[in-house]
Amino acid sequence: MSDRRRAILEGAARVIARRGVRGLRVGDLAAEAGVSTALIYYHFKDRTGILRQALAFITDRADRYTGAADGAGCEAAGSAGAPPSGTDPRQLLERILLLEFQDLPEVRENSTAWGELRAHAIFDPELREELGAAGAAWVEEVAALLAALCPAAPPEAATCAAERLTALLEGLSGRWLSGLLPVGHARDLMRGAIGVEIGRLGSLGSQID
Amino acid sequence: MSDRRRAILEGAARVIARRGVRGLRVGDLAAEAGVSTALIYYHFKDRTGILRQALAFITDRADRYTGAADGAGCEAAGSAGAPPSGTDPRQLLERILLLEFQDLPEVRENSTAWGELRAHAIFDPELREELGAAGAAWVEEVAALLAALCPAAPPEAATCAAERLTALLEGLSGRWLSGLLPVGHARDLMRGAIGVEIGRLGSLGSQID
Repeated sequence: MSDRRRAILEGAARVIARRGVRGLRVGDLAAEAGVSTALIYYHFKDRTGILRQALAFITDRADRYTGAADGAGCEAAGSAGAPPSGTDPRQLLERILLLEFQDLPEVRENSTAWGELRAHAIFDPELREELGAAGAAWVEEVAALLAALCPAAPPEAATCAAERLTALLEGLSGRWLSGLLPVGHARDLMRGAIGVEIGRLGSLGSQID
Repeated sequence: MSDRRRAILEGAARVIARRGVRGLRVGDLAAEAGVSTALIYYHFKDRTGILRQALAFITDRADRYTGAADGAGCEAAGSAGAPPSGTDPRQLLERILLLEFQDLPEVRENSTAWGELRAHAIFDPELREELGAAGAAWVEEVAALLAALCPAAPPEAATCAAERLTALLEGLSGRWLSGLLPVGHARDLMRGAIGVEIGRLGSLGSQID
């Protein structure tokens, strides 16, 4: 990615987190990124193009700081935040789900911007396809780790557990970002949910055996 | 509540759901509710007063359509949506948590506005106290029903389960409202989570016995 393209996307994530999708104006974004509006239109065609690429940028960034990029073999795999190869599925699962709760500006901004993009889809369907695809990839990744941990559980049960864990993460994240839940307690609740779901999947497996 | 006060709060919930807290302008709200801006200031003092009362209005409305108002003995207890007295805790719990997933304009609008008010607290602390109190009352109510169902489970385990179930509800609700999850599947996932948490609390109780 060129430096200027990256600067525009970083600026877009920042503006969306701070002012919402409704508050994203191309002129303001140009000022934020230190580029001309013409350059923004050259790279992203229109406002929808900016939103789509900002969503992809935010998803990649989350994959990087949670270490999820490692499993997916993306360019960030070798970065400092990536887990060592050979990590067991439980550790990987906890990493992916717990590293969304870190009191760091990048994580806060990323999660806030993701929430704004999702909320935008309530009234405007333009991003639904991309949001749906990003959500489905996330669920699939978590379901694969749950299936590795509980190989005897039915696959559809692992998928439902993954849907619940990722939706819970979004709910807890919203409360944490809004100052309603301390980050440590959000993490503890998330860790507890991982244990509860794995316990349940394990018991399903043993019933079938 | 006077008819005009109610009309203003209904208008505020509508505008917040549609345009977010940032999009709530007193002039627009006056037009929406068919009253003067002077009347709005007379009833609510300032913009923060409108937001606070809108939050209380939205919380009461949710209590009414989920039947939670029945247990709390509020004025809506005798309404058509309230559960019959003597309903068992499991039914009450499912009602409170599953009736947030109804494809009705009132429920959609209410949940959307709640999400916007919560997201507003990310940058502005003015509503945090009220949001925290409303959230704590909700968790307490759910925890009390879980404790009634699993009397041998430690109270703090029931509270953590209630925190997870209510946060999951917010996460699933966000996905449903954004068109990323069909309402029936959201309900099934929620029902599944209730079963998983009750199963876990039941096993904790039996370990202690």
